[in-house]
Amino acid sequence: MRYKLTVEYDGSNLLGWQRQLDGPSVQQYLEEVLSILNGGQHMEVSSAGRTDAGVHALAQVAMIELQRPMSEFKIREAFNAHLRLKGAPVAVTEVEAAAEDFHPRFKAKSRAYIYRILNRRAPSVLRQNRVWWVPVELDVGLMRKGAEYLLGHHDFTSFRAVACQAKSPLKTLDRLDIRQDGDEIVFEVEARSFLHHQVRNMVGTLKLVGEGKLAPTDIKMILEAKDRTKAGPTAPACGLYLSKVTY
Amino acid sequence: MRYKLTVEYDGSNLLGWQRQLDGPSVQQYLEEVLSILNGGQHMEVSSAGRTDAGVHALAQVAMIELQRPMSEFKIREAFNAHLRLKGAPVAVTEVEAAAEDFHPRFKAKSRAYIYRILNRRAPSVLRQNRVWWVPVELDVGLMRKGAEYLLGHHDFTSFRAVACQAKSPLKTLDRLDIRQDGDEIVFEVEARSFLHHQVRNMVGTLKLVGEGKLAPTDIKMILEAKDRTKAGPTAPACGLYLSKVTY
Repeated sequence: MRYKLTVEYDGSNLLGWQRQLDGPSVQQYLEEVLSILNGGQHMEVSSAGRTDAGVHALAQVAMIELQRPMSEFKIREAFNAHLRLKGAPVAVTEVEAAAEDFHPRFKAKSRAYIYRILNRRAPSVLRQNRVWWVPVELDVGLMRKGAEYLLGHHDFTSFRAVACQAKSPLKTLDRLDIRQDGDEIVFEVEARSFLHHQVRNMVGTLKLVGEGKLAPTDIKMILEAKDRTKAGPTAPACGLYLSKVTY
Repeated sequence: MRYKLTVEYDGSNLLGWQRQLDGPSVQQYLEEVLSILNGGQHMEVSSAGRTDAGVHALAQVAMIELQRPMSEFKIREAFNAHLRLKGAPVAVTEVEAAAEDFHPRFKAKSRAYIYRILNRRAPSVLRQNRVWWVPVELDVGLMRKGAEYLLGHHDFTSFRAVACQAKSPLKTLDRLDIRQDGDEIVFEVEARSFLHHQVRNMVGTLKLVGEGKLAPTDIKMILEAKDRTKAGPTAPACGLYLSKVTY
Protein backbone atom coordinates (compact mmCIF):
# COMPACT_ATOMS: atom_id res chain seq x y z
CA MET A 1 0.00 0.00 0.00
CA ARG A 2 1.43 3.36 -1.13
CA TYR A 3 0.73 6.63 0.62
CA LYS A 4 1.56 10.22 -0.23
CA LEU A 5 2.78 12.22 2.78
CA THR A 6 2.91 16.01 2.98
CA VAL A 7 5.79 16.93 5.26
CA GLU A 8 6.75 20.14 7.09
CA TYR A 9 10.25 20.60 8.46
CA ASP A 10 12.49 23.14 10.13
CA GLY A 11 15.76 22.62 8.28
CA SER A 12 17.88 24.66 10.72
CA ASN A 13 19.50 21.66 12.41
CA LEU A 14 19.14 19.16 9.58
CA LEU A 15 21.62 18.16 6.91
CA GLY A 16 18.77 18.36 4.40
CA TRP A 17 16.34 15.85 2.96
CA GLN A 18 18.79 13.08 2.12
CA ARG A 19 20.08 10.51 4.58
CA GLN A 20 23.68 11.29 5.62
CA LEU A 21 26.17 9.44 7.78
CA ASP A 22 27.23 12.46 9.83
CA GLY A 23 23.98 13.96 11.06
CA PRO A 24 20.19 14.04 11.03
CA SER A 25 18.11 14.30 7.87
CA VAL A 26 14.40 14.32 7.09
CA GLN A 27 14.68 11.05 5.19
CA GLN A 28 16.33 9.32 8.13
CA TYR A 29 13.67 10.45 10.61
CA LEU A 30 10.83 9.34 8.32
CA GLU A 31 12.51 5.99 7.54
CA GLU A 32 13.00 5.31 11.25
CA VAL A 33 9.29 5.81 11.91
CA LEU A 34 8.31 3.82 8.81
CA SER A 35 10.45 0.95 10.04
CA ILE A 36 8.52 0.92 13.34
CA LEU A 37 5.20 0.82 11.43
CA ASN A 38 6.51 -1.97 9.19
CA GLY A 39 7.53 -4.19 12.10
CA GLY A 40 11.25 -3.40 11.92
CA GLN A 41 11.74 -3.79 8.18
CA HIS A 42 13.69 -0.95 6.56
CA MET A 43 12.19 0.67 3.46
CA GLU A 44 13.31 3.79 1.65
CA VAL A 45 11.19 6.95 1.74
CA SER A 46 11.40 8.92 -1.52
CA SER A 47 10.51 12.60 -1.96
CA ALA A 48 9.72 15.20 -4.61
CA GLY A 49 13.25 16.54 -4.32
CA ARG A 50 16.29 16.78 -2.11
CA THR A 51 16.43 19.99 -0.18
CA ASP A 52 19.81 21.19 1.11
CA ALA A 53 21.00 21.56 4.69
CA GLY A 54 19.17 24.41 6.42
CA VAL A 55 16.35 24.64 3.87
CA HIS A 56 12.81 24.37 5.25
CA ALA A 57 9.65 22.78 3.87
CA LEU A 58 6.05 23.81 4.33
CA ALA A 59 4.88 20.97 2.08
CA GLN A 60 7.51 18.53 0.88
CA VAL A 61 5.92 15.41 -0.64
CA ALA A 62 7.14 11.95 0.29
CA MET A 63 5.98 8.43 -0.47
CA ILE A 64 5.88 5.46 1.86
CA GLU A 65 4.84 1.85 1.46
CA LEU A 66 3.17 -0.02 4.29
CA GLN A 67 3.02 -3.79 4.52
CA ARG A 68 -0.39 -3.68 6.23
CA PRO A 69 -2.89 -0.99 5.28
CA MET A 70 -3.73 1.66 7.94
CA SER A 71 -6.16 4.57 7.82
CA GLU A 72 -4.72 7.85 6.57
CA PHE A 73 -5.66 9.48 9.89
CA LYS A 74 -3.83 6.82 11.92
CA ILE A 75 -0.71 7.01 9.75
CA ARG A 76 -0.47 10.77 10.33
CA GLU A 77 -1.04 10.40 14.08
CA ALA A 78 1.54 7.61 14.33
CA PHE A 79 4.19 9.55 12.39
CA ASN A 80 3.68 12.72 14.44
CA ALA A 81 3.68 10.85 17.76
CA HIS A 82 6.97 9.08 16.93
CA LEU A 83 8.56 12.21 15.43
CA ARG A 84 7.74 14.18 18.59
CA LEU A 85 9.21 11.45 20.81
CA LYS A 86 12.44 11.65 18.80
CA GLY A 87 12.45 15.46 19.04
CA ALA A 88 12.58 15.55 15.24
CA PRO A 89 11.96 18.97 13.63
CA VAL A 90 9.64 17.19 11.18
CA ALA A 91 5.83 16.87 11.07
CA VAL A 92 3.47 15.05 8.70
CA THR A 93 0.64 17.42 7.84
CA GLU A 94 -1.36 15.25 5.41
CA VAL A 95 -1.60 11.61 4.35
CA GLU A 96 -3.40 10.28 1.27
CA ALA A 97 -3.58 6.81 -0.22
CA ALA A 98 -1.68 6.88 -3.55
CA ALA A 99 -1.99 5.00 -6.82
CA GLU A 100 0.29 2.04 -7.58
CA ASP A 101 2.30 4.10 -10.08
CA PHE A 102 2.60 7.25 -7.94
CA HIS A 103 6.13 8.58 -7.53
CA PRO A 104 6.73 11.88 -5.69
CA ARG A 105 9.68 12.87 -7.87
CA PHE A 106 8.86 11.58 -11.35
CA LYS A 107 5.15 12.42 -11.29
CA ALA A 108 5.64 16.00 -10.05
CA LYS A 109 4.44 18.64 -12.55
CA SER A 110 5.86 21.63 -10.72
CA ARG A 111 7.64 22.75 -7.56
CA ALA A 112 7.06 26.05 -5.77
CA TYR A 113 9.39 27.72 -3.28
CA ILE A 114 9.20 30.85 -1.23
CA TYR A 115 12.21 32.85 -0.10
CA ARG A 116 11.91 35.36 2.77
CA ILE A 117 14.23 38.34 3.24
CA LEU A 118 13.86 40.38 6.43
CA ASN A 119 14.70 43.89 5.26
CA ARG A 120 15.15 46.10 8.30
CA ARG A 121 18.05 47.49 10.26
CA ALA A 122 17.45 45.43 13.42
CA PRO A 123 17.76 41.64 13.45
CA SER A 124 14.73 39.57 14.47
CA VAL A 125 14.90 37.04 17.28
CA LEU A 126 11.39 35.68 16.65
CA ARG A 127 12.26 34.96 13.00
CA GLN A 128 15.82 33.75 13.54
CA ASN A 129 16.59 30.91 11.09
CA ARG A 130 13.32 31.73 9.28
CA VAL A 131 14.48 34.63 7.09
CA TRP A 132 17.63 36.05 5.51
CA TRP A 133 18.33 39.25 7.44
CA VAL A 134 19.44 42.00 5.03
CA PRO A 135 19.92 45.25 6.99
CA VAL A 136 20.53 47.51 3.97
CA GLU A 137 17.43 48.87 2.27
CA LEU A 138 16.41 47.02 -0.91
CA ASP A 139 14.43 48.52 -3.79
CA VAL A 140 11.67 46.01 -4.60
CA GLY A 141 10.77 47.79 -7.85
CA LEU A 142 14.30 47.35 -9.22
CA MET A 143 14.37 43.70 -8.15
CA ARG A 144 11.08 43.06 -9.96
CA LYS A 145 12.50 44.59 -13.15
CA GLY A 146 15.55 42.37 -12.90
CA ALA A 147 13.40 39.30 -12.19
CA GLU A 148 11.50 39.70 -15.48
CA TYR A 149 14.60 38.60 -17.45
CA LEU A 150 14.64 35.29 -15.59
CA LEU A 151 11.09 34.26 -16.47
CA GLY A 152 10.63 31.69 -19.23
CA HIS A 153 12.91 29.12 -20.89
CA HIS A 154 16.64 29.80 -20.44
CA ASP A 155 20.05 28.28 -19.98
CA PHE A 156 20.48 28.91 -16.23
CA THR A 157 24.20 27.99 -16.07
CA SER A 158 24.99 31.32 -14.36
CA PHE A 159 22.62 30.42 -11.52
CA ARG A 160 23.63 26.77 -11.18
CA ALA A 161 25.78 25.33 -8.41
CA VAL A 162 29.09 23.93 -9.64
CA ALA A 163 28.13 20.61 -8.03
CA CYS A 164 24.79 20.44 -9.90
CA GLN A 165 24.20 17.01 -11.42
CA ALA A 166 21.36 17.90 -13.80
CA LYS A 167 21.97 16.76 -17.37
CA SER A 168 20.92 20.06 -18.88
CA PRO A 169 21.09 23.68 -17.63
CA LEU A 170 17.92 24.49 -19.59
CA LYS A 171 14.91 25.17 -17.37
CA THR A 172 11.62 27.03 -17.66
CA LEU A 173 10.86 29.44 -14.85
CA ASP A 174 7.07 29.87 -14.70
CA ARG A 175 6.81 32.33 -11.84
CA LEU A 176 9.04 34.76 -9.96
CA ASP A 177 6.92 37.16 -7.95
CA ILE A 178 8.39 39.53 -5.40
CA ARG A 179 6.13 41.12 -2.82
CA GLN A 180 6.59 43.35 0.19
CA ASP A 181 4.97 41.90 3.33
CA GLY A 182 5.53 44.29 6.24
CA ASP A 183 9.27 44.31 6.89
CA GLU A 184 9.80 41.25 4.68
CA ILE A 185 10.43 40.85 0.96
CA VAL A 186 8.97 37.54 -0.17
CA PHE A 187 9.95 35.77 -3.41
CA GLU A 188 7.52 33.20 -4.84
CA VAL A 189 8.96 31.00 -7.57
CA GLU A 190 7.62 28.05 -9.51
CA ALA A 191 8.95 25.74 -12.21
CA ARG A 192 8.69 22.13 -13.32
CA SER A 193 12.11 21.69 -11.71
CA PHE A 194 15.12 23.73 -10.63
CA LEU A 195 18.89 23.37 -10.90
CA HIS A 196 20.90 22.93 -7.71
CA HIS A 197 20.98 26.26 -5.79
CA GLN A 198 19.05 27.97 -8.61
CA VAL A 199 16.53 29.72 -6.34
CA ARG A 200 19.15 30.84 -3.83
CA ASN A 201 21.48 32.06 -6.60
CA MET A 202 18.66 34.03 -8.25
CA VAL A 203 17.73 35.61 -4.90
CA GLY A 204 21.37 36.37 -4.05
CA THR A 205 21.80 38.12 -7.41
CA LEU A 206 18.50 40.04 -7.28
CA LYS A 207 19.47 41.25 -3.80
CA LEU A 208 22.45 43.02 -5.47
CA VAL A 209 19.97 44.67 -7.85
CA GLY A 210 17.87 45.78 -4.86
CA GLU A 211 20.97 47.34 -3.31
CA GLY A 212 21.83 49.17 -6.53
CA LYS A 213 25.07 47.22 -7.02
CA LEU A 214 23.68 45.75 -10.23
CA ALA A 215 21.21 47.24 -12.71
CA PRO A 216 18.09 45.26 -13.62
CA THR A 217 19.47 44.82 -17.17
CA ASP A 218 22.60 43.21 -15.75
CA ILE A 219 20.44 40.16 -15.01
CA LYS A 220 20.00 39.69 -18.77
CA MET A 221 23.76 39.89 -19.35
CA ILE A 222 24.49 37.51 -16.48
CA LEU A 223 21.99 34.99 -17.86
CA GLU A 224 23.51 35.25 -21.36
CA ALA A 225 27.07 34.88 -20.04
CA LYS A 226 26.32 31.28 -18.90
CA ASP A 227 29.01 31.73 -16.28
CA ARG A 228 28.37 31.14 -12.56
CA THR A 229 31.05 33.66 -11.57
CA LYS A 230 29.08 36.53 -13.18
CA ALA A 231 26.06 36.12 -10.85
CA GLY A 232 25.81 37.04 -7.17
CA PRO A 233 26.49 34.86 -4.14
CA THR A 234 24.16 32.08 -3.02
CA ALA A 235 21.53 33.40 -0.62
CA PRO A 236 21.54 31.57 2.75
CA ALA A 237 19.48 28.41 3.18
CA CYS A 238 17.51 29.72 6.19
CA GLY A 239 15.22 31.92 4.03
CA LEU A 240 14.15 29.13 1.64
CA TYR A 241 10.97 27.04 1.93
CA LEU A 242 9.74 24.29 -0.38
CA SER A 243 6.09 25.41 -0.37
CA LYS A 244 4.18 23.24 -2.86
CA VAL A 245 4.55 20.29 -5.21
CA THR A 246 1.87 19.89 -7.88
CA TYR A 247 0.96 16.55 -9.49
CA MET B 1 19.36 61.60 28.44
CA ARG B 2 16.25 59.39 28.20
CA TYR B 3 15.50 57.10 25.29
CA LYS B 4 12.48 55.02 24.38
CA LEU B 5 13.41 51.56 23.11
CA THR B 6 11.11 49.25 21.15
CA VAL B 7 12.06 45.69 21.98
CA GLU B 8 11.32 42.33 20.34
CA TYR B 9 11.86 39.09 22.23
CA ASP B 10 11.34 35.38 21.97
CA GLY B 11 10.07 34.51 25.43
CA SER B 12 10.48 30.73 25.04
CA ASN B 13 13.60 30.46 27.19
CA LEU B 14 13.11 33.56 29.31
CA LEU B 15 11.56 33.91 32.76
CA GLY B 16 9.69 36.96 31.46
CA TRP B 17 10.38 40.68 31.45
CA GLN B 18 11.37 41.07 35.08
CA ARG B 19 14.82 40.37 36.47
CA GLN B 20 14.90 37.06 38.41
CA LEU B 21 17.59 35.36 40.43
CA ASP B 22 17.11 31.93 38.88
CA GLY B 23 17.28 32.56 35.15
CA PRO B 24 17.44 34.97 32.23
CA SER B 25 15.00 37.83 31.74
CA VAL B 26 14.61 40.62 29.19
CA GLN B 27 15.28 43.26 31.85
CA GLN B 28 18.52 41.60 32.89
CA TYR B 29 19.84 41.40 29.30
CA LEU B 30 18.99 45.04 28.62
CA GLU B 31 20.46 46.22 31.93
CA GLU B 32 23.69 44.35 31.24
CA VAL B 33 24.09 46.13 27.91
CA LEU B 34 23.09 49.48 29.38
CA SER B 35 25.74 49.04 32.05
CA ILE B 36 28.38 48.58 29.31
CA LEU B 37 27.22 51.78 27.58
CA ASN B 38 27.23 53.66 30.90
CA GLY B 39 30.79 52.70 31.74
CA GLY B 40 29.95 49.97 34.21
CA GLN B 41 27.32 51.80 36.22
CA HIS B 42 24.13 49.83 36.84
CA MET B 43 20.81 51.51 36.04
CA GLU B 44 17.37 50.00 35.96
CA VAL B 45 15.51 49.57 32.66
CA SER B 46 11.75 50.06 33.03
CA SER B 47 9.09 48.83 30.60
CA ALA B 48 5.44 49.28 29.66
CA GLY B 49 4.58 46.10 31.54
CA ARG B 50 5.92 42.85 32.89
CA THR B 51 5.30 39.95 30.56
CA ASP B 52 5.29 36.44 32.02
CA ALA B 53 7.70 33.60 31.36
CA GLY B 54 7.29 32.29 27.81
CA VAL B 55 5.38 35.33 26.52
CA HIS B 56 6.81 37.03 23.43
CA ALA B 57 6.98 40.68 22.40
CA LEU B 58 6.90 42.18 18.94
CA ALA B 59 7.08 45.69 20.39
CA GLN B 60 7.59 45.98 24.15
CA VAL B 61 8.55 49.54 25.13
CA ALA B 62 11.43 50.19 27.52
CA MET B 63 13.18 53.29 28.77
CA ILE B 64 16.89 53.78 29.35
CA GLU B 65 18.98 56.66 30.59
CA LEU B 66 22.44 57.29 29.20
CA GLN B 67 25.06 59.36 30.97
CA ARG B 68 26.50 60.63 27.68
CA PRO B 69 24.19 61.23 24.71
CA MET B 70 24.54 58.94 21.69
CA SER B 71 22.73 58.96 18.35
CA GLU B 72 19.57 56.84 18.23
CA PHE B 73 21.09 54.81 15.39
CA LYS B 74 24.24 54.04 17.39
CA ILE B 75 22.28 53.05 20.50
CA ARG B 76 20.28 50.49 18.50
CA GLU B 77 23.41 49.13 16.81
CA ALA B 78 25.24 48.87 20.14
CA PHE B 79 22.35 47.09 21.88
CA ASN B 80 21.88 44.59 19.05
CA ALA B 81 25.61 43.89 18.77
CA HIS B 82 25.95 43.17 22.51
CA LEU B 83 22.68 41.18 22.65
CA ARG B 84 23.87 38.98 19.78
CA LEU B 85 27.21 38.40 21.49
CA LYS B 86 25.37 37.24 24.60
CA GLY B 87 23.09 34.99 22.53
CA ALA B 88 20.13 36.84 24.03
CA PRO B 89 16.72 36.19 22.40
CA VAL B 90 16.16 39.96 22.51
CA ALA B 91 16.51 42.66 19.83
CA VAL B 92 16.03 46.42 19.88
CA THR B 93 14.02 47.40 16.81
CA GLU B 94 13.70 51.17 17.37
CA VAL B 95 15.25 53.90 19.50
CA GLU B 96 13.89 57.42 19.99
CA ALA B 97 15.01 60.24 22.25
CA ALA B 98 12.33 60.72 24.92
CA ALA B 99 11.07 63.67 26.92
CA GLU B 100 12.26 64.23 30.51
CA ASP B 101 8.90 63.11 31.91
CA PHE B 102 8.48 60.03 29.67
CA HIS B 103 7.72 56.81 31.50
CA PRO B 104 6.96 53.62 29.52
CA ARG B 105 4.47 52.31 32.09
CA PHE B 106 2.69 55.36 33.48
CA LYS B 107 2.44 57.27 30.19
CA ALA B 108 1.03 54.32 28.21
CA LYS B 109 -2.50 54.94 26.89
CA SER B 110 -3.13 51.41 25.70
CA ARG B 111 -1.57 47.99 25.27
CA ALA B 112 -2.29 45.59 22.42
CA TYR B 113 -1.64 41.87 22.35
CA ILE B 114 -2.10 39.17 19.78
CA TYR B 115 -2.70 35.51 20.60
CA ARG B 116 -2.12 32.82 17.95
CA ILE B 117 -3.83 29.42 17.98
CA LEU B 118 -2.71 26.84 15.40
CA ASN B 119 -5.91 24.96 14.66
CA ARG B 120 -5.07 21.86 12.67
CA ARG B 121 -4.65 18.18 13.39
CA ALA B 122 -0.87 18.07 12.79
CA PRO B 123 1.60 19.95 15.00
CA SER B 124 3.87 22.54 13.38
CA VAL B 125 7.64 22.35 13.75
CA LEU B 126 8.25 25.71 12.04
CA ARG B 127 5.89 27.45 14.49
CA GLN B 128 6.87 25.54 17.62
CA ASN B 129 6.78 27.90 20.65
CA ARG B 130 5.09 30.50 18.43
CA VAL B 131 1.48 29.30 18.64
CA TRP B 132 -0.82 27.29 20.89
CA TRP B 133 -1.47 24.07 19.01
CA VAL B 134 -5.16 23.07 19.33
CA PRO B 135 -5.79 19.93 17.25
CA VAL B 136 -9.59 19.87 17.69
CA GLU B 137 -11.58 22.01 15.27
CA LEU B 138 -12.72 25.36 16.69
CA ASP B 139 -15.77 27.32 15.49
CA VAL B 140 -14.59 30.90 15.01
CA GLY B 141 -18.17 32.21 14.65
CA LEU B 142 -19.13 30.89 18.10
CA MET B 143 -15.96 32.31 19.66
CA ARG B 144 -16.73 35.74 18.16
CA LYS B 145 -20.22 35.65 19.68
CA GLY B 146 -18.78 34.78 23.08
CA ALA B 147 -16.13 37.50 22.75
CA GLU B 148 -18.79 40.22 22.38
CA TYR B 149 -19.74 39.87 26.05
CA LEU B 150 -16.20 40.71 27.11
CA LEU B 151 -15.99 44.03 25.28
CA GLY B 152 -16.38 47.20 27.33
CA HIS B 153 -16.13 48.02 31.04
CA HIS B 154 -16.47 45.00 33.37
CA ASP B 155 -15.31 43.41 36.59
CA PHE B 156 -12.91 40.82 35.14
CA THR B 157 -12.41 38.85 38.39
CA SER B 158 -13.33 35.59 36.61
CA PHE B 159 -10.45 36.12 34.18
CA ARG B 160 -7.89 37.33 36.71
CA ALA B 161 -4.97 35.29 38.05
CA VAL B 162 -5.19 34.59 41.77
CA ALA B 163 -1.77 36.21 42.15
CA CYS B 164 -2.88 39.43 40.40
CA GLN B 165 -1.78 42.51 42.32
CA ALA B 166 -4.00 45.11 40.62
CA LYS B 167 -6.02 47.21 43.06
CA SER B 168 -9.24 46.85 41.09
CA PRO B 169 -10.64 44.07 38.87
CA LEU B 170 -12.45 46.69 36.78
CA LYS B 171 -11.02 47.09 33.28
CA THR B 172 -12.24 48.33 29.92
CA LEU B 173 -11.62 46.00 26.99
CA ASP B 174 -11.56 48.14 23.84
CA ARG B 175 -10.96 45.44 21.26
CA LEU B 176 -11.25 41.66 20.97
CA ASP B 177 -11.14 40.65 17.31
CA ILE B 178 -10.82 37.04 16.23
CA ARG B 179 -9.75 36.28 12.68
CA GLN B 180 -8.92 33.17 10.71
CA ASP B 181 -5.50 33.39 9.04
CA GLY B 182 -4.88 30.18 7.09
CA ASP B 183 -4.62 27.40 9.67
CA GLU B 184 -4.36 29.91 12.53
CA ILE B 185 -6.97 31.67 14.64
CA VAL B 186 -5.59 35.04 15.71
CA PHE B 187 -6.97 37.09 18.62
CA GLU B 188 -6.26 40.83 18.65
CA VAL B 189 -6.99 42.57 21.96
CA GLU B 190 -6.48 46.07 23.21
CA ALA B 191 -7.10 47.91 26.48
CA ARG B 192 -5.59 50.67 28.59
CA SER B 193 -4.30 47.86 30.82
CA PHE B 194 -4.98 44.22 31.62
CA LEU B 195 -5.19 42.13 34.76
CA HIS B 196 -2.60 39.40 35.32
CA HIS B 197 -3.30 36.49 32.89
CA GLN B 198 -6.43 38.26 31.62
CA VAL B 199 -5.69 37.74 27.92
CA ARG B 200 -4.65 34.10 28.36
CA ASN B 201 -7.69 33.37 30.56
CA MET B 202 -10.05 34.96 28.01
CA VAL B 203 -8.46 32.93 25.19
CA GLY B 204 -8.53 29.72 27.25
CA THR B 205 -12.24 30.22 27.94
CA LEU B 206 -13.19 31.22 24.38
CA LYS B 207 -11.39 28.09 23.16
CA LEU B 208 -13.97 26.06 25.12
CA VAL B 209 -16.70 28.00 23.29
CA GLY B 210 -15.00 27.17 19.95
CA GLU B 211 -15.02 23.49 20.91
CA GLY B 212 -18.71 23.60 21.84
CA LYS B 213 -18.03 22.84 25.51
CA LEU B 214 -19.44 26.24 26.47
CA ALA B 215 -22.15 28.31 24.75
CA PRO B 216 -21.36 31.90 23.76
CA THR B 217 -23.86 33.13 26.39
CA ASP B 218 -21.92 31.23 29.09
CA ILE B 219 -19.27 33.95 28.76
CA LYS B 220 -21.78 36.47 30.10
CA MET B 221 -22.58 34.23 33.08
CA ILE B 222 -18.90 33.57 33.79
CA LEU B 223 -18.18 37.31 33.74
CA GLU B 224 -21.09 38.02 36.11
CA ALA B 225 -20.06 35.23 38.50
CA LYS B 226 -16.83 37.12 39.38
CA ASP B 227 -15.29 33.76 40.18
CA ARG B 228 -12.05 32.56 38.58
CA THR B 229 -13.08 28.91 38.91
CA LYS B 230 -16.03 29.43 36.53
CA ALA B 231 -13.82 30.39 33.56
CA GLY B 232 -11.62 28.10 31.47
CA PRO B 233 -7.93 27.29 31.95
CA THR B 234 -5.14 29.77 31.22
CA ALA B 235 -4.01 29.46 27.58
CA PRO B 236 -0.26 28.70 27.27
CA ALA B 237 2.23 31.57 27.19
CA CYS B 238 3.79 30.54 23.85
CA GLY B 239 0.87 31.93 21.78
CA LEU B 240 0.91 35.41 23.34
CA TYR B 241 2.68 38.48 21.91
CA LEU B 242 2.76 42.02 23.30
CA SER B 243 2.29 43.75 19.95
CA LYS B 244 1.91 47.49 20.56
CA VAL B 245 2.00 50.10 23.30
CA THR B 246 0.41 53.46 22.49
CA TYR B 247 1.39 56.75 24.16
